[in-house]
Amino acid sequence: MKHYPEDINQWFAAIRSGDVSSLSKAITLVENEKPEALELANELLQLCRPYLNSSFRIGVTGIPGVGKSTFINALGKNLIQKRHKLAVLTIDPSSSINKGSILGDKTRMMDLSSMENVYIRPSPSGGTLGGAANKTREAIWLCETANYDTVLIETVGVGQSEIDIDKMVDITIVLMMPATGDDLQGIKRGIMEIGDLFVINKADGNLEKEANHAKATILNALNLFQNNHDYSGSKVLICSSLQEKGIEEVVQSIINFKTYLQENELLNERRKTQLLQWFYDNVDSLLRHKLLQGSKYKSLIQELEQKVQNQHISPTEAAHFLIEKILL
Amino acid sequence: MKHYPEDINQWFAAIRSGDVSSLSKAITLVENEKPEALELANELLQLCRPYLNSSFRIGVTGIPGVGKSTFINALGKNLIQKRHKLAVLTIDPSSSINKGSILGDKTRMMDLSSMENVYIRPSPSGGTLGGAANKTREAIWLCETANYDTVLIETVGVGQSEIDIDKMVDITIVLMMPATGDDLQGIKRGIMEIGDLFVINKADGNLEKEANHAKATILNALNLFQNNHDYSGSKVLICSSLQEKGIEEVVQSIINFKTYLQENELLNERRKTQLLQWFYDNVDSLLRHKLLQGSKYKSLIQELEQKVQNQHISPTEAAHFLIEKILL
Repeated sequence: MKHYPEDINQWFAAIRSGDVSSLSKAITLVENEKPEALELANELLQLCRPYLNSSFRIGVTGIPGVGKSTFINALGKNLIQKRHKLAVLTIDPSSSINKGSILGDKTRMMDLSSMENVYIRPSPSGGTLGGAANKTREAIWLCETANYDTVLIETVGVGQSEIDIDKMVDITIVLMMPATGDDLQGIKRGIMEIGDLFVINKADGNLEKEANHAKATILNALNLFQNNHDYSGSKVLICSSLQEKGIEEVVQSIINFKTYLQENELLNERRKTQLLQWFYDNVDSLLRHKLLQGSKYKSLIQELEQKVQNQHISPTEAAHFLIEKILL
Repeated sequence: MKHYPEDINQWFAAIRSGDVSSLSKAITLVENEKPEALELANELLQLCRPYLNSSFRIGVTGIPGVGKSTFINALGKNLIQKRHKLAVLTIDPSSSINKGSILGDKTRMMDLSSMENVYIRPSPSGGTLGGAANKTREAIWLCETANYDTVLIETVGVGQSEIDIDKMVDITIVLMMPATGDDLQGIKRGIMEIGDLFVINKADGNLEKEANHAKATILNALNLFQNNHDYSGSKVLICSSLQEKGIEEVVQSIINFKTYLQENELLNERRKTQLLQWFYDNVDSLLRHKLLQGSKYKSLIQELEQKVQNQHISPTEAAHFLIEKILL
């Protein structure tokens, strides 16, 4: 394929050796939905298998405006000072019509982006008709192959999307506002369940007092909602990303939580569940691709598409019919 | 199957005649993910085919706390007074671990829920390992079969989820806060693109002035972001659901937009696209079910699952391998 290195073994070796441009090209390849790209990506990823799950993966989620980029900037700097090699992947699911992210994130990660041993990559999330899943997991895997020992994944979301991030990380950090009781009514069960750590950001200036109030409310909410593990360390923290206050405590809490996961065999268990989920997501998206692009079912599918659009058959019936044929 | 009416033709007839309990049972059936339920649902839905797309479907989305339930209560009352028969489906994607919604919505729709010709149904959105898509579209279809001419679908979301609602409705209303310029930075391209109508809620008391400010900001944002149609009627409205002010204007705007869609052949076009998307979503979820439940690939899948979990094969490779076998 054009634009991609010709020798796949050399390409892989370049990624392994830490060549950032080869890594970026590889991520572009796995995000490409063309059939040739799918095949080539599969070939490249086969070489990367030994490095899968070799990093510690940290998810950061929170509503727009909560300061995710600034938080990642501060957290990332701390991790770099601790001699980690850090990859940051930002997912922007906010635009499905015009793919791509609105600029701005990178400017808020200014300090971090100029450091050594840091790789920052904004990834548009997929979601078009014909429906490819997003390829964040593959991007993480490629970063792992390139020897990044820590991967930060940033995602927006109050709805469905932040529920997905916990499918691909070892720890999920939910960033929250130092808000008054009233605003916190927006806390929903889902977000309380997926969060491993809750960090109240923007605790600076006259918001410090409100941050403490928010902490009490979140602790209270945590008691109300059932969580998916029984970690007893501190789960609710306060920080100011702008002033870089409280970041060291966040890092220590991440380390404590990681130790808890490891000591209780939970890290492995989480990852096994995630691998299975990933497998099935891949089955779905691959099948759709293959069906649409010239399998022996192509003409049957075209016929069904037409009937569905003209309401001569319902989408449900058509799907049953097709699946019967395929699995015959 | 237990708990379900035995004679499917009688069941269908009861739904058609407007029996609410038969309708509710049918929605429970389509949400059931057991294999027997899938078959039975397909049988029942086949009878419903003539009524698919017989309603006008209105989607209402907005962040938590914006007042969706109160808005729907006010909007619904207005529609009922205009002699519509109204179904309201609320989707709560906030909890994927404990399925089911947190109570409260129904109390905020108190007036509406006690009226005649109204059916209100909270539907938990699916999303578990093994991954069934949510069945809101089937629920809408069943309401259409039961002769509801207007279906309101309420969904939470700033992330992915509100981007999905426009896949199943004729008009998407984005509910917004009367917020200051600062808060509106949270406006992302995605939400500006999917919204057909923007309604600023809570314009009562001392928020009226801010509502006007918000209106200007949204109008401005609409100019910046590319929208998916060129409707020239008013797209940004102000209301107070609590005081039921401005609701009539919202209803008139919905009617104007519907006319615009019809006159430009866009209603049909939207629905055709949606039917196709629905078909492929069904293909995905059905295939997964069938594969997992006793197809001839069952033992191969079990073997692949084990290898994936032990990292002897990557999820990507395993998916390619399985799909090759299936489509051979």
